[in-house]
Amino acid sequence: MLALRRAGEYKLFGQIAASRLYCASCSAKVTIASVSHNVSTKQQLFFTDPISPGSIFFLPNGAKIFNKLVNFMKLQQQHKYGFQEVMTPLIYRKSLWEQSGHWEKYKEDMFRVEGQDIDKEEYGLKPMNCPGHCVMFKKSARSYTELPLRFSDFSPLHRNEASGALSGLTRVRKFHQDDGHIFCTAEQVESEIKKSLDLVDLCYSKVFPLGPNGTPTKYSLCLSTRPDNFIGSIEVWNKAESVLSDILRTSGKEWRVNEKDGAFYGPKIDVLLTDHHGKDHQVATIQLDFNLPERFDLKFKDKDNVYKRPIMIHRAVFGSLERFMAMIIDSNAGKWPFWLNPHQCMVIPLNTKNHEMVSKSREIANILKGENVEGTEPVKMNSLHFNVEVDDRAEPVGYRIKDAIMRNFSYLIMVGAKEIESEKYAIRTRDSRELSHLSVDEIFQKFVDLEQNYQ
Amino acid sequence: MLALRRAGEYKLFGQIAASRLYCASCSAKVTIASVSHNVSTKQQLFFTDPISPGSIFFLPNGAKIFNKLVNFMKLQQQHKYGFQEVMTPLIYRKSLWEQSGHWEKYKEDMFRVEGQDIDKEEYGLKPMNCPGHCVMFKKSARSYTELPLRFSDFSPLHRNEASGALSGLTRVRKFHQDDGHIFCTAEQVESEIKKSLDLVDLCYSKVFPLGPNGTPTKYSLCLSTRPDNFIGSIEVWNKAESVLSDILRTSGKEWRVNEKDGAFYGPKIDVLLTDHHGKDHQVATIQLDFNLPERFDLKFKDKDNVYKRPIMIHRAVFGSLERFMAMIIDSNAGKWPFWLNPHQCMVIPLNTKNHEMVSKSREIANILKGENVEGTEPVKMNSLHFNVEVDDRAEPVGYRIKDAIMRNFSYLIMVGAKEIESEKYAIRTRDSRELSHLSVDEIFQKFVDLEQNYQ
Repeated sequence: MLALRRAGEYKLFGQIAASRLYCASCSAKVTIASVSHNVSTKQQLFFTDPISPGSIFFLPNGAKIFNKLVNFMKLQQQHKYGFQEVMTPLIYRKSLWEQSGHWEKYKEDMFRVEGQDIDKEEYGLKPMNCPGHCVMFKKSARSYTELPLRFSDFSPLHRNEASGALSGLTRVRKFHQDDGHIFCTAEQVESEIKKSLDLVDLCYSKVFPLGPNGTPTKYSLCLSTRPDNFIGSIEVWNKAESVLSDILRTSGKEWRVNEKDGAFYGPKIDVLLTDHHGKDHQVATIQLDFNLPERFDLKFKDKDNVYKRPIMIHRAVFGSLERFMAMIIDSNAGKWPFWLNPHQCMVIPLNTKNHEMVSKSREIANILKGENVEGTEPVKMNSLHFNVEVDDRAEPVGYRIKDAIMRNFSYLIMVGAKEIESEKYAIRTRDSRELSHLSVDEIFQKFVDLEQNYQ
Repeated sequence: MLALRRAGEYKLFGQIAASRLYCASCSAKVTIASVSHNVSTKQQLFFTDPISPGSIFFLPNGAKIFNKLVNFMKLQQQHKYGFQEVMTPLIYRKSLWEQSGHWEKYKEDMFRVEGQDIDKEEYGLKPMNCPGHCVMFKKSARSYTELPLRFSDFSPLHRNEASGALSGLTRVRKFHQDDGHIFCTAEQVESEIKKSLDLVDLCYSKVFPLGPNGTPTKYSLCLSTRPDNFIGSIEVWNKAESVLSDILRTSGKEWRVNEKDGAFYGPKIDVLLTDHHGKDHQVATIQLDFNLPERFDLKFKDKDNVYKRPIMIHRAVFGSLERFMAMIIDSNAGKWPFWLNPHQCMVIPLNTKNHEMVSKSREIANILKGENVEGTEPVKMNSLHFNVEVDDRAEPVGYRIKDAIMRNFSYLIMVGAKEIESEKYAIRTRDSRELSHLSVDEIFQKFVDLEQNYQ
């Protein structure tokens, strides 16, 4: 059972870092840890501590970026690709992991959980969401009309990576996936895989151009075929592999075959991102699974009133959120696009001894931050809030401008006497000295447009 | 150490269900479990399973409500009350829990976590966020200019409640708090407590009117004073208690004193919500803590360049999100306000054999769902998406209207020939037969207004 091997055994098999038992993992060995560490230190994004090795402490700026990435993916999954978000437990009795096969094959990579009262109940801390989603599928009688049924889940996952291998955001013990499981019929597999590849392309080509200087991300696809220790019938495998290779052939993307590198439970397509050092990292994965539906005896009532077994597709697009964040940092070196930037705009009063300039700067910042809510009124649902600061330190204006640029603020707004009089404020980006003069409303609208279009 | 007693020992002390070691817990004994169970079954909100006793499986509709509650609280905390959201690990080495005092006093309520490789590392699964936030405070050198420093955290927490006590959403082992810790100076305590009470009032009086027929929630405040086994100096306690009682006296709210019922580490204010059976439930809590800053040797550099010890305030407004959800369900019996409703609107073509009526109904639903994004474009960040369905089953229109009302859809839109011609659609609420005629844009704007104002 190749797919069930432990992290440390990858080298033995001489293969690229692949996803492990069922789901995409965060096992790529990367050199990008040091880049993200440096950026994090400057921008106060996250830290690690020996008190919880391999678990990230996200500081406020890091949590903002993390939440934006999750929001982006939730919007796409739920409102374009038909997923429904669910929330599932983190600890499950040992019997679940025995049923899924993890306890036998994956135990050493899992954390064992135990009650400390007299009952001493024994659990496993989940390394992946699939068995929980199978429990959810099985909880009600399912009909063909519900398929394809697509669950998404952003639960924290834990895998007991060797302590020597832990490194920043890229090799962790606690991480989050943009995880999704699709329960569908054999006939639906093709369109579901295509949709999953569409979302991969939307993500890597359109929204996250991680190539050099903001060019589209270079990625390739890799089809892993039937291993020697496969389960199921050769006919089903042949059909599934031919569906996958047909899709890849017509995808227009670069792709290759890894013979016999599929999981024992089904063939898969891995998405490999090439970083700007030319190195490949596995990010997204799309895996067919004939095994878990069998182990959990999942079934749905078909049109003909006969109970049938669904096929399960495991897919993740970012893969590990933590590792994906490290890859963005590696490509932008901390120069976040506006929508992801925890430092979106700095407001700079030209003369910090001038009371009017300082108070107008704060007023502008409060409007852009959406923090002008009065009295006992709640902040409105769906209201917009940009990350804006005021630098009114008693330092020369040139110094404060340079400092804001060094700290990678996307925009700088300068507030002087002329600006206050005309109610049009000088605004520039961090990369160009060119000034525009805009009203606060126009600036707010500009920010709305940038953020909603992922720029 | 009264505050450290276990759940099962409450009766022994003959007290109301109080929060335990440091943070608000979800220990109230309520009769509302059965109400939320019934509503959940009808509306498909959540379920529990013996495979993970006391952990909730949130189905898509339940996850929607959960996420809305979290969004509401994040908006208030971050954009009105100066909190910064952080994300912290779930497992910590035993030594952290020894330092915090949990391992000695709270061990039986905690889950122990163990690596299953040869290292067999030992961890505790966190029952509360405070020690992790202390680690975060201590990670950098802190200055008085950063105080008050307010961290918020929505991490999943685990407490090993006795299996016999587990019940629906109200008595669980895995839960989430709207948790927050404020690190501040003695001088800042008063204004921080006042702000916390403001947020409690905003939440319970304005946004969640859980009284009978949507009247403001009835709640009272309870000051718990110095117990016999207190730590610290009597002067500091006296000062803190007098600050708290002054605040309560001027609050205009009903309040009382629970003599000697404070935690050993500081006095506290508990917020007790009265349900419509007249029963009290502890929800919010605001606790002063002189102990953890001592145990973790927390300090900040003051104006005078001298290192000083901050005071820590633990506060939660909902308390347990899961239990708060059960209380809303108990008060509304599944009739969610529009903004929280997983069933916001049903579109009903009057004649399901009329192709135009059916396709127009679907078109309207897609616009309101914000799912009219074309081709390869991403769904925009910050875009709005309402929970809208179409009932085009081949059933009489009267039956479908009644069914949508029974299922507690907030609004029903009827699409007939006249409506299509005039582009004004008949819309009604679940509670009144009165019809308005509005364009799709007007309906969308109506929904925007309702949701942003928490109606």
